[in-house]
Amino acid sequence: MTDQETPDTVGMPAPPTVPTVRPKRVSHRGRHVAPLASSNKIDEEVPEFEPFMLLPKGLPPLMEYLDVWDVDMIKQPHEVNKQKHHTNLYSNDYLIVRRAQEFQIKITFNRAYKPVEDKFAVEFVIGASPQYSKGTYIPVFPSKERQSIWRGQVLETSDNVVTIGIITAPDCIVGKYGLYIAVVTPYGIRRTRRDPKLDVYILFNPWSPADAVFLDDEEEREECVLNELGVIYHGAYDDVAERSWNYGQFEFGILDACLFIMDKGDMPLTNRGDPVKVSRKASAMVNSRDDEGVLVGNWSGDYMYGVPPTSWTGSVEILRDYSGSQGMPVGYAQCWVYAAVFNTFLRCLGIPSRVVTNFFSAHDNDGNLKMDIILDDKGRVDRSRTRDSIWNYHCWNECFMARPDLPDGFGGWQVVDATPQETSDGMYRCGPASVAAIKNGQVCYPFDAPFVFAEVNSDVVFYSRSMEGTLQPVKVNTKHVGRMVLTKAVLHDGRRDITDHYKFPEGSAEERLVLEKAEELGCQREKASLRPVDIDVEILAQEVQLGETFDLELQFTNHSAQQHVVDIYISGTVVYYTGVPSAEVVFQTPTVKLDPKQSKKEKLVVRSEAYLKKLLEVQGNLHFIATGKVKKTGQIITAMRLVTVHNPRLTVKVAGSPRVDEEMYVTVEFTNPFMFSLENVYVRVEGPGIMSIQTKQYRIIGPGSSITWTENFSPRRAGSTKMMASLDCAALRQVYGETEVTIQE
Amino acid sequence: MTDQETPDTVGMPAPPTVPTVRPKRVSHRGRHVAPLASSNKIDEEVPEFEPFMLLPKGLPPLMEYLDVWDVDMIKQPHEVNKQKHHTNLYSNDYLIVRRAQEFQIKITFNRAYKPVEDKFAVEFVIGASPQYSKGTYIPVFPSKERQSIWRGQVLETSDNVVTIGIITAPDCIVGKYGLYIAVVTPYGIRRTRRDPKLDVYILFNPWSPADAVFLDDEEEREECVLNELGVIYHGAYDDVAERSWNYGQFEFGILDACLFIMDKGDMPLTNRGDPVKVSRKASAMVNSRDDEGVLVGNWSGDYMYGVPPTSWTGSVEILRDYSGSQGMPVGYAQCWVYAAVFNTFLRCLGIPSRVVTNFFSAHDNDGNLKMDIILDDKGRVDRSRTRDSIWNYHCWNECFMARPDLPDGFGGWQVVDATPQETSDGMYRCGPASVAAIKNGQVCYPFDAPFVFAEVNSDVVFYSRSMEGTLQPVKVNTKHVGRMVLTKAVLHDGRRDITDHYKFPEGSAEERLVLEKAEELGCQREKASLRPVDIDVEILAQEVQLGETFDLELQFTNHSAQQHVVDIYISGTVVYYTGVPSAEVVFQTPTVKLDPKQSKKEKLVVRSEAYLKKLLEVQGNLHFIATGKVKKTGQIITAMRLVTVHNPRLTVKVAGSPRVDEEMYVTVEFTNPFMFSLENVYVRVEGPGIMSIQTKQYRIIGPGSSITWTENFSPRRAGSTKMMASLDCAALRQVYGETEVTIQE
Repeated sequence: MTDQETPDTVGMPAPPTVPTVRPKRVSHRGRHVAPLASSNKIDEEVPEFEPFMLLPKGLPPLMEYLDVWDVDMIKQPHEVNKQKHHTNLYSNDYLIVRRAQEFQIKITFNRAYKPVEDKFAVEFVIGASPQYSKGTYIPVFPSKERQSIWRGQVLETSDNVVTIGIITAPDCIVGKYGLYIAVVTPYGIRRTRRDPKLDVYILFNPWSPADAVFLDDEEEREECVLNELGVIYHGAYDDVAERSWNYGQFEFGILDACLFIMDKGDMPLTNRGDPVKVSRKASAMVNSRDDEGVLVGNWSGDYMYGVPPTSWTGSVEILRDYSGSQGMPVGYAQCWVYAAVFNTFLRCLGIPSRVVTNFFSAHDNDGNLKMDIILDDKGRVDRSRTRDSIWNYHCWNECFMARPDLPDGFGGWQVVDATPQETSDGMYRCGPASVAAIKNGQVCYPFDAPFVFAEVNSDVVFYSRSMEGTLQPVKVNTKHVGRMVLTKAVLHDGRRDITDHYKFPEGSAEERLVLEKAEELGCQREKASLRPVDIDVEILAQEVQLGETFDLELQFTNHSAQQHVVDIYISGTVVYYTGVPSAEVVFQTPTVKLDPKQSKKEKLVVRSEAYLKKLLEVQGNLHFIATGKVKKTGQIITAMRLVTVHNPRLTVKVAGSPRVDEEMYVTVEFTNPFMFSLENVYVRVEGPGIMSIQTKQYRIIGPGSSITWTENFSPRRAGSTKMMASLDCAALRQVYGETEVTIQE
Repeated sequence: MTDQETPDTVGMPAPPTVPTVRPKRVSHRGRHVAPLASSNKIDEEVPEFEPFMLLPKGLPPLMEYLDVWDVDMIKQPHEVNKQKHHTNLYSNDYLIVRRAQEFQIKITFNRAYKPVEDKFAVEFVIGASPQYSKGTYIPVFPSKERQSIWRGQVLETSDNVVTIGIITAPDCIVGKYGLYIAVVTPYGIRRTRRDPKLDVYILFNPWSPADAVFLDDEEEREECVLNELGVIYHGAYDDVAERSWNYGQFEFGILDACLFIMDKGDMPLTNRGDPVKVSRKASAMVNSRDDEGVLVGNWSGDYMYGVPPTSWTGSVEILRDYSGSQGMPVGYAQCWVYAAVFNTFLRCLGIPSRVVTNFFSAHDNDGNLKMDIILDDKGRVDRSRTRDSIWNYHCWNECFMARPDLPDGFGGWQVVDATPQETSDGMYRCGPASVAAIKNGQVCYPFDAPFVFAEVNSDVVFYSRSMEGTLQPVKVNTKHVGRMVLTKAVLHDGRRDITDHYKFPEGSAEERLVLEKAEELGCQREKASLRPVDIDVEILAQEVQLGETFDLELQFTNHSAQQHVVDIYISGTVVYYTGVPSAEVVFQTPTVKLDPKQSKKEKLVVRSEAYLKKLLEVQGNLHFIATGKVKKTGQIITAMRLVTVHNPRLTVKVAGSPRVDEEMYVTVEFTNPFMFSLENVYVRVEGPGIMSIQTKQYRIIGPGSSITWTENFSPRRAGSTKMMASLDCAALRQVYGETEVTIQE
């Protein structure tokens, strides 16, 4: 190595290529002109006076010109704006209106307004660096000659008071705007000072045909936008359980929490007028993965550092905790909690939405339509090799909007899912995916349709593993997954079966075409052609109370003309609702002889002592799977049954005069039915609109002991509502009770 | 409040709802059966002996059965496997083959193999908990009677040695597999012990028609898979600059770094056979946003904690730093660095790919086709209100694959872009988006097509801002963005203009239909109908050396039959290549008189002192924009021109005998052409295949001083390559030089 160096150069060692200390964030200089506007927080920089030119000395008096003395936002819940915009229920002192629909404000000037001479504008701003071309600065002119993208008109003048009507654009940014009145003088523009009391929220508008979320059905709007109470379904498709929920979208602080969620997620303001983008971003922000969103998921049973998912009775506490702590994720959630909080968010901002439950949901799929169960060479389930699990049920949301980014025909209900899904490339957001597209197998349109399609359409493939380790598919159950999709009925507490929104009838020609279409578009199915069955086995349905000993019944049917002998393995496992097995608690291996064309029942006694302890640890269900080999033919037969074990209930009673502001009482009663104590028991009671959440802890409730807890309260609002209570402790969860309450004025 | 409490309950205060301490990760218990297999790392758990049953006492001697004495993976670069699979160039001791194509291994047993009696399998495993149904455990049988999803056959037997041919599935997982030989005995399965020397990498195979990445063009495959050297275009569309790059995909450690990137991103193994998913995941992982990926972006000019983006000459150092530090993101990158490292990743794994450059790229778009420039009421550019910036150029990747998830016709080249984009909802990944779909405006198919469409098709909309603050569009330039798309020619250093892959010809009927289609699918354009122009202005092209004083020429053309006077504002700004302005360095306001039908040139002298200092701070270009008002008509006219200022070059010379292992010398020479010193100067030189990276630092190079640096080296490989050098310091970047070198055996 030779160097010809001038006297003032000195070769130095090569610089390290991996720095050990680096600051977290790099300046935006060179990358952006200015930081991106991704927060609703209103900048303080709109100038009070914008001169047109250098002002001459000795200004003529500006008092000849219009001066603003007062602005009335007409924002009381009983006044015209909130009444006509269906925003009167929000517990919020500011004006709240919906877009693409006229609202009114009254400006009091120093003198009467002269339409020809006087020029002024009502200006709306949102976020930092407001700009007209970005929809973050919008002047509204009251005169016909000049109109901006939001329209204005003088509705009425009376002395010094002018009533202005304003119609916002149907795709304007949803959020909280600041308001100024700007008066044009020959020397420049004079503005009112920033006054937060004039701030106005502008929301999505399902009542306006011009808005992308337009829903042309008044009852659906009342249910999916205005109803704060809901019912969420869970359990098993043949033993559906219900859980009431307080979405509370109009409660104090919730609207601001929703705007905070979008700010926390750095969602650019320019995207906040598009319901497709808002719902997609929120499906990421409602879970805490990646982005410090609202909820931390936890299925483990260890909830020490938060609230057990089954303990929540509503979204309000969760959203207030999140925004109150400036965005510290709240623990804990499972799928219905994600869906319920997401529902609150959507309804609060004005996007019609509902929570749906899919029974037997293939949640952790990779877009393929196969959920595998591995059997050993005898036909017994090999749990160590079976890694897939089908969720007993899964809750997601549907929201209603047009889809201008897709070809015609895919607007309407869209699936969005905030529960993180692990197998699909780190996807912690899902949707919106058009329900119509999913039904028709058109899974090539955004967003994430293949995953939702697989959730409702996967096949369960039973593989038989030979001694040498190869696998052969021996049975394909095409009916198991996506057994039923339920949502709450409109405006009453019934169930609406919407399975046919997602799937054509089982076995129909359309169903076959749809699955072929989806396969063309990449969803792989098991195509093994299997022999038709001689022998059927079915496990019959059961309704079981927690702690009962019960009989499990299997029904065998021999369709053939030969006698057959079947070796059966019956395995009963305690499973989490995600289908993940915890412990096998029942295992029997009867041999069943069947005469030609015979139907026969086989009974299995399931003792309380066998399952109770394990079931209480896991708070799940009992999953029975029967598999076996027909001796003569080697054919594999299978049956599965999920048995929901019903918990004890709370008794909730309400007493007192059912009127606003009157004194009333709620009593919650519970008796411990077990032979062991319950320790560190939390009871929670909530009455949407009438009583805020109350909680009480009991250190111990002994075997057979009862508790009775009474609270007094004073209803804030009139109307029909519920008093809902939950009881939770490590040994026993999901104990609920409720009662309906109607309050008069 | 009354409580009826049993003696052993005590009411306790309500639990806190917001815990202050919470562990970072929640157990997967209840959520998954087992942790997801998202790492290539091979589990050690495949048992050495798997008994079929309880073994009797006193086993008969197992030596009657086949015993494996040796396995030859036939893995030398000159041997048949690597030669036929085009994997002989990897600097890697393991066997590397491509999928869907036969490769051979030789097994030496203890005795001759008896096809009828002897049963054995060659087993491949990848990751943790290998399973057949997930494609992570694959047994290969040599006999026709039984075949698994990978096919095997005995090619040859010779004494104790059996040569097996193995064909992997065309969609198998890409990664590094462990290998076992499993022999079936009546008592159980005997396996070889885990031996890492038998590990085999299986890659994508563009030579096989069965593989989704099949590319039916041998020269394209040699360029886009096998070529380690590339050329990246930058600068301006009418003054294109070139930069050589060492992709180095076959260099030592790079293949493992690529697998590490997928592991670091927790990419599920089951997704790693799908090039759509692999390229999508990598577009997220190549940038460090969200997921501790490879590169940290930095455009600010302050590169103290890393290597300046313009200083890199290849990907090798970057990828080795990243994997060597177990995934600490490497600083710094700008768009070509992201694209180049991404290109190495794709080519290394076997997905054909190339880097493309789009001149005038609307990178930070929100799917809308409008880039706004705000003019004041006189027609002068209002920089404080103009927030959009168009990148002078932007580099992304195209990779080649079928798109089975889309309707027919959208396979082939796909756009993927790893440079983070800020305005689209936090998108730090982009693509794959079908180039054919983008050309045809079919932006409704996944992934992220609207953003790529807008990058090449946005209009530049000039708004005039009235005194009262409203904006009117006064000019729309539809030709500016997406002026030209270039990539390197196949197998030689020329340019290939591929603009017509992305766009129909300007003004054609197809172009109009495409833009209408995209608008139907949600991309909004400016639809103002503007008057046709009487007066044109154009800024003529320039080639300028750094430090020169030069003339800027404007050409005015008066198409009308009237005399016109135009007030022009000419602004020259130093801009980053992202179009972000740094400082205005030229501002003149001539008035131009034009006779009817006259063409006239107006000259502007741009002095070196005016721009040099600011330009050196920013290392960008000079952007001139002329805007003005025609006095009589009020019409606004505009012109824009980017002037690339050419840096001094390095001289690179190579001496010595150009043969493998001979001693050779490279000399790098540079003279500082300025009147000021350059301090802390780093010079970097790299010769792919012949000399590893050398760097040298000079504390100071005085005005007019020269440096000469010579290194000796010994070429490792024969073939055509380049010696590439770069010089970098705070005051001067992007100084390059290179020379071609051909090495004989």
